[in-house]
This record gives sequence, C-alpha cells and structure tokens, in this order.
Amino acid sequence: MKKISLLGATGSVGLQTLDVIREHPDQFSAVALAFGENIDIALPLIQEFHPKLVAVKNKTVAEQIRPALTKEIRLVYGVEGMIEAAVIPESDILVNAVLGSIGLEPTLAAIEAGKTIGLANKETLVTAGHLVMKKAKEFGVSILPVDSEHSAIFQSMQGQDRSAISRLILTASGGSFRDKKREELEGVTINDALNHPNWSMGAKITVDTATMMNKGLEVIEAHWLFGMPYEKIDIVIHRESIVHSLVEYADHSVIAQLGLPSMLVPIQYALTYPSRLELKLTKQLNLWEIGTLHFQKVDTQRYPSVSLAYHAGKAGGSMPTVLNAANEIAVQAFLSGKIAFLDIERFVETALEHHQVVQMPDLETIEAVDRETRAFVMNKIN
Amino acid sequence: MKKISLLGATGSVGLQTLDVIREHPDQFSAVALAFGENIDIALPLIQEFHPKLVAVKNKTVAEQIRPALTKEIRLVYGVEGMIEAAVIPESDILVNAVLGSIGLEPTLAAIEAGKTIGLANKETLVTAGHLVMKKAKEFGVSILPVDSEHSAIFQSMQGQDRSAISRLILTASGGSFRDKKREELEGVTINDALNHPNWSMGAKITVDTATMMNKGLEVIEAHWLFGMPYEKIDIVIHRESIVHSLVEYADHSVIAQLGLPSMLVPIQYALTYPSRLELKLTKQLNLWEIGTLHFQKVDTQRYPSVSLAYHAGKAGGSMPTVLNAANEIAVQAFLSGKIAFLDIERFVETALEHHQVVQMPDLETIEAVDRETRAFVMNKIN
Repeated sequence: MKKISLLGATGSVGLQTLDVIREHPDQFSAVALAFGENIDIALPLIQEFHPKLVAVKNKTVAEQIRPALTKEIRLVYGVEGMIEAAVIPESDILVNAVLGSIGLEPTLAAIEAGKTIGLANKETLVTAGHLVMKKAKEFGVSILPVDSEHSAIFQSMQGQDRSAISRLILTASGGSFRDKKREELEGVTINDALNHPNWSMGAKITVDTATMMNKGLEVIEAHWLFGMPYEKIDIVIHRESIVHSLVEYADHSVIAQLGLPSMLVPIQYALTYPSRLELKLTKQLNLWEIGTLHFQKVDTQRYPSVSLAYHAGKAGGSMPTVLNAANEIAVQAFLSGKIAFLDIERFVETALEHHQVVQMPDLETIEAVDRETRAFVMNKIN
Repeated sequence: MKKISLLGATGSVGLQTLDVIREHPDQFSAVALAFGENIDIALPLIQEFHPKLVAVKNKTVAEQIRPALTKEIRLVYGVEGMIEAAVIPESDILVNAVLGSIGLEPTLAAIEAGKTIGLANKETLVTAGHLVMKKAKEFGVSILPVDSEHSAIFQSMQGQDRSAISRLILTASGGSFRDKKREELEGVTINDALNHPNWSMGAKITVDTATMMNKGLEVIEAHWLFGMPYEKIDIVIHRESIVHSLVEYADHSVIAQLGLPSMLVPIQYALTYPSRLELKLTKQLNLWEIGTLHFQKVDTQRYPSVSLAYHAGKAGGSMPTVLNAANEIAVQAFLSGKIAFLDIERFVETALEHHQVVQMPDLETIEAVDRETRAFVMNKIN
C-alpha cells in the first residue's frame, strides 16, 4: 500500500490522481489532501478518501470547512499547512499538483523528509531546478515527473544507457491556435484560447499551451529533471498528441512513449514506478484507428515564447523565475480580460529584458525575484 | 573488446555487421567468419578483419579459397564447419545471419558453449523456438534479436515491468506491392517483388516482405523470443518504416523504438547491449523532416500469409517448420521463375493442410519434417 500526500487535490491533475487512487484501493491511499478554497469539490473527496490531514488556502477557508470534518482529521492552512501536508510522516510519496511557484517550498520540505516526489508542479523546477535537484540528490530522493511529456521521456529512459542520450524531443500539440497565423492572433478571446483540441486541462495551462510557453517551461523542466543541456532539447509539433515525447541515443535509435491523450497514465506511472498496473479508465491505442500522425518544426517567429524560454533557460540563475512569474501575471491579466493574447509574450519579454540575472540564487533570492517580477509586470499592465 | 563469430558474413546483415565492427575497432573484432561460396566478397573481408577461423559451404569452396588464406587461419567447411565457427573458444557472441533453417544447429551449439546469441536468422526460432529458448534458459544465455522489429520490441522492454506487457505490435511496411490490390498481383514479376520501398535486403526476405510472410514469421519469432501468446501479438502496416515496433503495457502506455530505416542500429545494439555507442554510418531522425506517419490495419484477405503464419504458430509443434520450409521452397521457385507470385501462398497453404502436427518435436523430427515438406512442395511444383 502506497500512501499519498496530494497537493492541489481539486485541480485537474489532483482530481485525476484521486481517480487513479480510487481505481486501486488495495494499492494506494490518500493520507493528506491539500486544496485552495474549492470546498464544494473538496468535501465529498475528503469524505470518500478519509485523509488524516487536510490543508486549505487560509484561515477563512479552514473555518468554513471545519464543521463538516470529523474530529480525526487534522485541519491546517496556508503555506505552513501545505508544507505539513507534504511532510506528513504517514506518506510515502508527495504528488505536488498545485499551480504556480507556491509549490516550491512544500517540494523542498518533502525532499528533506525523504518522500518520493511526483511532480506536476512545473514551476518548482523552472524557478529552482538547481536547488531541487541538488537537494534530491543529497537526500537520495526520486523526482518522478507527472506531466505527459516528462513522463514519456522518463519512461523512454528506463533500462537505457543514459550516458548515450543525445537528445530529448518534446512533442507539442501547438495549442488551440495552431492553425492560425500570427497576425490572426491579435483579436483572439479567452474562450478561443481555452478551447484546447486534445487535452482537458486547467485555464492557465491551456493558455500556456496556446502561446507555447507551456512547452518552453517544459524545456527548462526537462533540463533540470534529466540534466540535459538546452542544445540537446528539441521540440516537435505533433498535432494528434499521440507520441508524448522521445529520447534519442548516440546510435540514432529513438525511444518514445505513446498513448491516447490522458493524464491518468503519467499520474499512475509515477505512483506505480517502476512497476505498472492496469488502468481501466483509459483506452487502448490502436494506431490504425488514428491512421496518420503529423510532425512539424516549431516556427519560433510564430511562437516567440519558445525562444524566450530557451533564452531564459540558457541565461540561467534567476532568469527562469522571471520568465515564470511574468508569464503567470500576464496570463492572469489575459484571463481577466485586461490584456490581449499577444500581450502575454510582450510582457514576459519586457520582464526578461528588465531583469539583471543572479546566478545560483538561494530560496530567498528566488522568492524576492518572483515578487519583484510580479509587481513589475502588474505595474506595467495597470 | 567483444569478440564476434559471424555466420553469413557475405549476406546483407553479415556485411552490415562487419560495417559496425569496422566503425569500432577498439570495441569489436571478428574472430570467425562463415559464408557460403561468395569468395569474391569474402576474401577482402578476411584480409581486412583477420579472423582466426573461416568456415565455407563445402569442400570445393574450401579448396578454391585455401591458397589465398594465410596459414594462421583455420579453414573449415560444411555444417560441421559452421558449428565450429559458432563455438570458437575465442568468441563472446555469435551473430547468426545465415538464411534458412541451416542456422539452427550452430545456434544450439553456441548456446551450449555459453555464447551470447545475436540472432538475425529467424528460422532458428520459427522452426525450433521451443528448443532454442529452453536451451538458452538452461545455459543462462541471452538471445538478442538482430532484426529491426524484434530489436525495437527488445529495446522497448528494457527497464519496463515485463509482467505488465499487454501486447506486442510489429510494424510492417506492406512490402513492394502494398499499393496493389490482390487481383493485381496475378502477373507481378520477380523484379517487381525485389523493388522494396524502404529497406535494402536480400532477395528471399524481400519476397517474404511482399507476401508479408516475413511478418508472419516475425510473429512466431516474437512469440518465442518474448514468451507472448499469439493473441497478444498484433501487426500494423506502417509504410514509412520509421516506427520499428511497439510494446503496450497494462496501463495503456506504449513504448516504441523509432529511427530512419537501417539494419545497422539493431545490429550494433545487439553488440553493445545494454550500452550504446555512436553510429556515424546512420542518420539522425528528425520527425519534422518525415512530416507524416501512416498506420493501417492488416487486411488478411489481402495478405493471407499472415493468417497462415498465425495458424501455424497457434497449431504449434512442427507446424511452423512446415510453414517455413514450404515458404522457402516456394519463394525459391518464384525467384527462379517456376511459379507465379500468388502461388507462393498457395503452396504454403497446401503444405500446412497436408501436415499432421507433431507436438514438442525434437531436433531430428524438425529436420525430418523440414526435409519432407521441401520434398512435398518441390514435388507439387514440378
């Protein structure tokens, strides 16, 4: 029985993690659930999974939910509460599925507590990959990717000669605007952006997919997760999202992981690794039913976010923190109707240009840069 | 330094094995070379690679080549000579790249001598899979596949949970007649059949690819190599030959091996396994340059050889020996202009119908069934 602490329980990945746990009650249990303020979704899940600990966003939410919880459940809140959920002694693995850079501190704390980390929170690696991977090495902890592309790469590396890896190739769907030219993007709406062709995901990540900043962040994540230089990480646009990513070796052999688009597979793989279990919630891939798979080169004129991400990644230090923070604020502003779609990239670029990179930043510096960048971009927007 | 004994040195796979050895003189050497009667090709190779032992088809060939060899080279001939090459004490690995069921005895002898087996001779497994795999297990010997599809499957299993494998999926190019309807095949010529779109191979295997008997034989080979029931082995037609085969797991995750078509990759992988080495003779796969990959279901009305192979495989025992022997004779008859292309399948089917299956045949029985089937089919042809 693997005991799981889940951060971001009411989000898209969180709910699917609970789907996997539900499918294998003899294999998995949820010992801690952390969510923000979505009590209506969380309450029935708490009643179903009986966690020992529940963490919520703040004191207000805690007071709202307290009367509905049994006495045996410990209720905590805030970042401190989330960290407590992450390091709960009963857990074997932390699944970190919160959005944004608030996922960083719980990850570091869980590594120190010796927990295996299932990481869906890409900001953790984007903003502090050097700290996270160093600490994971120090404490002998595995960081298992819980998004589709990195899980595909991770699966395609198993049992292989890692010293012979010559290239990681991330596939990208191209997002909801992939059939539009750049000049057609000027007037696109929030609803247009949220209409992703292949994947059902949260609003923030769906917008990131449309700008392809999502893929840019994944390139940085892959750099840290797999210790690969940026020159050896490529992106290929693959509209069907069947090939989830690929690893090329020195002999030009390429290993890839495929499947019908579903987050359940990478989530479950992180929970069962290195074994596998049945997954009845997903369907078998028959390539003859798909018929045709398309691949095309990324046009960085069309998707400047990709260039911005490579630029920030190669600059290193605090630069990816700026990329991520500026992007979060700009996407929020787009989602609340304050700026146009193409402005997202413009604000990110402005923030990168403005920033003086700090090499090997510590946690305090990362947090300061994160705050300063958010303030800088908000100020530019308003 | 890995020392290699190579059977079938002047054939397509044999020559490419020597290409790989030539590319890594610090890693590999050829200590024994066996070939048939192609002295013109063999002689410069012997002079280049300096094997300790050379095996040829028969005494006549031996006498022809003897004057050209230095005294240090031991020269042997016949099946006994091939076996001597296979078990030469200096070798670490036998690469068996002979065509046809004469590859069986040297393989069994090499297993008993504790050699790792790189197997390009599929008849070895088709006709005597139960004997070969049992002996390999008994002597703790690895059988490493040296054809593209089985190497792809083998590569896609590394580091994976083998108990969770739910399906092997072999890709098939569809062969040189894949764009023809069945009724258009009546009058096709030898030259038409030998014009394979993706792979440069020998004549026999190119015809087998056109009938898709090659894929049928590979299904039986996969059954034995990977211990999978026939119900869990599928074929998908994939005209570009970029995805070389796939393995599906219980969680519906699919791992595949890809690359530009080249036998050099599976050959080298068998030699370097479990490591990998650079392979400058091959080119990098960039999926955006390929653009589109196509997949379609196998129409067994169109390719009856596939059904014949599954039928023979499931019947088991001596039946695959009949399938293979009848096919060898029929393909030879087609290549010498005695029968039409579609007659190949008809003679194979007739031989299968005629045969009374013997379960768990020993080597003598297999050899007897092989001889009887060849005589039976030759008799029908003439």
